[in-house]
Amino acid sequence: MVTIRAAVEGDRAAIWAVLEPVIRAGETYALPVDLSMDEGLAYWFGVGNAVFVAEAEGRVVGTYLLRANQRGGGGHVANCGYMTAGDFVGRGVARAMCAHSLQVARERGFRAMQFNFVVSTNERTVRLWKSCGFAVVGRLPGAFAHPALGFVDALVMFRTL
Amino acid sequence: MVTIRAAVEGDRAAIWAVLEPVIRAGETYALPVDLSMDEGLAYWFGVGNAVFVAEAEGRVVGTYLLRANQRGGGGHVANCGYMTAGDFVGRGVARAMCAHSLQVARERGFRAMQFNFVVSTNERTVRLWKSCGFAVVGRLPGAFAHPALGFVDALVMFRTL
Repeated sequence: MVTIRAAVEGDRAAIWAVLEPVIRAGETYALPVDLSMDEGLAYWFGVGNAVFVAEAEGRVVGTYLLRANQRGGGGHVANCGYMTAGDFVGRGVARAMCAHSLQVARERGFRAMQFNFVVSTNERTVRLWKSCGFAVVGRLPGAFAHPALGFVDALVMFRTL
Repeated sequence: MVTIRAAVEGDRAAIWAVLEPVIRAGETYALPVDLSMDEGLAYWFGVGNAVFVAEAEGRVVGTYLLRANQRGGGGHVANCGYMTAGDFVGRGVARAMCAHSLQVARERGFRAMQFNFVVSTNERTVRLWKSCGFAVVGRLPGAFAHPALGFVDALVMFRTL
């Protein structure tokens, strides 16, 4: 079972342990693969971000951030990023975090959620977001340089709340 | 005739004079309409942004910023924002800035350019970007709260370089 709660200062090392392998792999996030712990956590805990952790078996096995995707007239659309510990991929953590984030976003008054840059070759994730109610509303041709596959498309996904 | 050059420190007041009415109107940019001069210039001159000005009749009549749209594997796609002084709208300033930005982006090694959030009701601008080679690759339903029209779509536009 997965429990999700707001992140606290003491979670930073555990969050980095989740983030680092995903960033180093460079296959799913548009972030420098050599990002330091300080830079990575500064990104994850950026101004305006609400950060949550997913716990299972007594440890942090996933984390997500929620923020407004735009300011001003675009401030009613939320944006999230999710990462799961490698040994917990495929065990419902991302789905649980997404469901949690949709509820938090509703409670905070957002009217929709948008993912700006879903790497198209990350097929399991694309399927997961579709099953969570997201539609592909845009395709960015060759917008992601995959370390193994070269230039691949990125998707924009969107759902109302 | 429009001349375009890199912005310098002394351009800040003139740049704000272009930005402020566009921001205050709140019809085309997803920025708070009450943004202060300091906040507005901090946004325009954000880390990693290259800023240019367009001059005509001896003054600054437009400005644009160029940056990478994403980091890491997304760093080969540029992003720009353009604003034109009200009394120079429709006189070729935005087109000249766009042409200039495409050339600068090529010189800097970018392979494509993406606009993340073109308000769909800004029809003249949508037509202009299409005539500059951009295609609509995404439509964000109701993603912009227009002050007069309510929730309207925003477009994602893209072209290779």
